[in-house]
Amino acid sequence: MSIRIGIIGYGNLGRGVECALKQNPDMELVAVFTRRNPTDVSILTQEAAVRNVSEVEEWKDKIDVMILCGGSATDLPKQTPEYVKYFNVVDSFDTHARIPEHFADVDKAAKESGKIGIISVGWDPGMFSLNRMYANAILPEGKDYTFWGKGVSQGHSDAIRRIEGVKNGKQYTIPVEAALEAVRAGKNPELSTREKHTRECFVVLEEGADAAKVEEEIKTMPNYFADYDTTVHFISEEELLKNHSGIPHGGFVIRTGKTGWNKENSHVIEYSLKLDSNPEFTSCVIAAYARAAYKLSREGQTGCKTVFDIAPAYLSAKSGEELRASLL
Amino acid sequence: MSIRIGIIGYGNLGRGVECALKQNPDMELVAVFTRRNPTDVSILTQEAAVRNVSEVEEWKDKIDVMILCGGSATDLPKQTPEYVKYFNVVDSFDTHARIPEHFADVDKAAKESGKIGIISVGWDPGMFSLNRMYANAILPEGKDYTFWGKGVSQGHSDAIRRIEGVKNGKQYTIPVEAALEAVRAGKNPELSTREKHTRECFVVLEEGADAAKVEEEIKTMPNYFADYDTTVHFISEEELLKNHSGIPHGGFVIRTGKTGWNKENSHVIEYSLKLDSNPEFTSCVIAAYARAAYKLSREGQTGCKTVFDIAPAYLSAKSGEELRASLL
Repeated sequence: MSIRIGIIGYGNLGRGVECALKQNPDMELVAVFTRRNPTDVSILTQEAAVRNVSEVEEWKDKIDVMILCGGSATDLPKQTPEYVKYFNVVDSFDTHARIPEHFADVDKAAKESGKIGIISVGWDPGMFSLNRMYANAILPEGKDYTFWGKGVSQGHSDAIRRIEGVKNGKQYTIPVEAALEAVRAGKNPELSTREKHTRECFVVLEEGADAAKVEEEIKTMPNYFADYDTTVHFISEEELLKNHSGIPHGGFVIRTGKTGWNKENSHVIEYSLKLDSNPEFTSCVIAAYARAAYKLSREGQTGCKTVFDIAPAYLSAKSGEELRASLL
Repeated sequence: MSIRIGIIGYGNLGRGVECALKQNPDMELVAVFTRRNPTDVSILTQEAAVRNVSEVEEWKDKIDVMILCGGSATDLPKQTPEYVKYFNVVDSFDTHARIPEHFADVDKAAKESGKIGIISVGWDPGMFSLNRMYANAILPEGKDYTFWGKGVSQGHSDAIRRIEGVKNGKQYTIPVEAALEAVRAGKNPELSTREKHTRECFVVLEEGADAAKVEEEIKTMPNYFADYDTTVHFISEEELLKNHSGIPHGGFVIRTGKTGWNKENSHVIEYSLKLDSNPEFTSCVIAAYARAAYKLSREGQTGCKTVFDIAPAYLSAKSGEELRASLL
C-alpha cells in the first residue's frame, strides 16, 4: 500500500511535488487543494482529485501526509500550525530568521493533535542546512561559507519589476569565482557582501521608459542591489522569454577547518548544487521528507521536526539492509 | 560533566581521535588501551591513562564511549562485537562488502548488552555514504559517481613495498579530470575503471634493483594496478620522506538526475572532501559519532547503528534551539 499524499497550493512548488511523486512509486498523489475554483485548475495526475481548500478537513482519513506549497511570507505561518491539526505535514518555510517561532507554533499544534510536522524542507533551508550542520560537528574549529547561484532570485526579480518603467525582468545571483577559489584554498577570507556575489539583471522596458533612470534605480536600491556590483542588460520581451524563462539555481556550502594537536592540517568540505529547476528540486527534497513524516508518524512520534532531527534512512524507500548493502 | 571517551589502539587513527577530542570540550579522553607495553606508549593528553588492552573491562563504569581504532581486516571484526559487551563503541570498519555481516555481529552483541555500537564511521564509508544516500532519496531517477583522491592509498602503497627490490613507496590515487567534468556536465557517462582514476607511484629502490623490472611488476599487478593507467617515478629515500610523508586524501560523490513530468530538467548534487590528513579527518567524524553514541545510549537505545540511522542533531554539542537558530 502506498503513502497517500495531498498537496495544498498548486503553483510552481505544487506542480514540482506532483512531478516528484511520479518518480517515487511508494507514494501516491490523492488530491490537490486550491484556493481557486477547482474546475479552473488542471493537474497532471489523472487519478488525483482537485478540491477547494475549504474541503480539506473531509480528507483527514484519506491522506497520510499533506504537503504545504504556500509561501513563507503569509501562507505557511498560518497554514502549517492549522493543517497539522488534521494531517502530518511538510512545509518549505524559508524565512530563516523566523524559523524558531514557526517551529514553536507547529510543535505545539502537532503535539496536541498527535501528528508530525516537518518544517523548512528544501535546499536552503534544507540540504544546505544539513551540510552546514554535519560539517560544523565534524570540524569544530573552522569557518562556514555559503554561496548562492548562479540562479534566479525571485525576490530580486520582483523588486525590479516593481520599478516604474519596467515591463518585465529577471535577476541572477552569481557567486564571485575568486571568492570561491580563496575559500577552497583554505585562505579563510573575510568576505564582504560585495565580494561574495554579483547581481545580473535582464530588463524589458515599457515603451518610452528612461533606461538610464531605471538602471540607476536598480543599482542603488537598498538591501536588494546597493551592496552589490550589479550589471543591467536591457533586452526585448522576446529575448527574455526565450533565454530567461527558466528558474535555475544552486550554490555552494563550504566549511574549512584545522585538525591536529597543533592545528597543522587543513581540510575542505564542500557541498554544491546545480539545479535546472529550483522548485522541482525543492519538491524532490520535500517528497523524501514526506516519506519520513509517514514513517515517523507510524512509529508514534509527534511534534515539529526539521532536517536536523530526522535520521537519513527515513528518507529512503529502501530497507536498512538494502541501504547498508548498496550505499554504505 | 563531559562525555568520557576511551581509545583502543594508538596508531594514526588513535592519535587522530586524541587530537579531535581536544577540539570538543564536551568530551574528555580518559584512557588509551594498547596491545603494547603501556610504558612504551607515550600519548599527548597529560590527563589520560595508558593501559594494556587486557585491563579494558575494569574501565567499564569509567568510560561512556569506547572508540575502536584497529584495522578492518582482522581487528574490528573481532573487537567491535567483543567490546560492545562492555561499552558503547564506535568503529571505522571499512570493508564495504563485509558490512552487512559485521552489522549483524555487532547488533546481536549490542542488543544483548544493552549498548550502542556505531560502525563504519569515517568518510568512506561515512560521509560519502550519507551523501550517496541523501542524493538517492532526493533524485530517484539518476546516476551515482564516486571518485577518490587525490590521495594516498595505503593498500596500494603496501602492495608496492612488497615487490622485490623496492625499499619504500607511496601511491596516489588521482581522479581523471575529464571524467569528473563529464559527470558534472550531466552527460551520464559510463566510465571504466581506467577512465575514472589514474595511479601515480613514487618508489625508492633497494641498491642494485632493476628499475625496469619493478616498474613492469607494478604496472601489471592484477587488481591493484593492471586496470589503471599507472605512472612510476623512481626517487631517493630523502625525496620520498621530504615530499611524500603526508597522508592526504579526499574525493567526490556526485549524483546527477532528472526531474519534471517528462524529465526535462537536470540536477547535479556534489559533495567533495579535500583532506590534508586522512586519519585525522576520519577521527573527527568518529568523535562526532561518539557524541551521538552517548546521547542514544542515554535515551535507552541499543543495538548496532550506522550513519544512516542517526539523526544529524545527535552529532552536535549544540541544542536543537541553537541549531535551528544558527544553522538551519
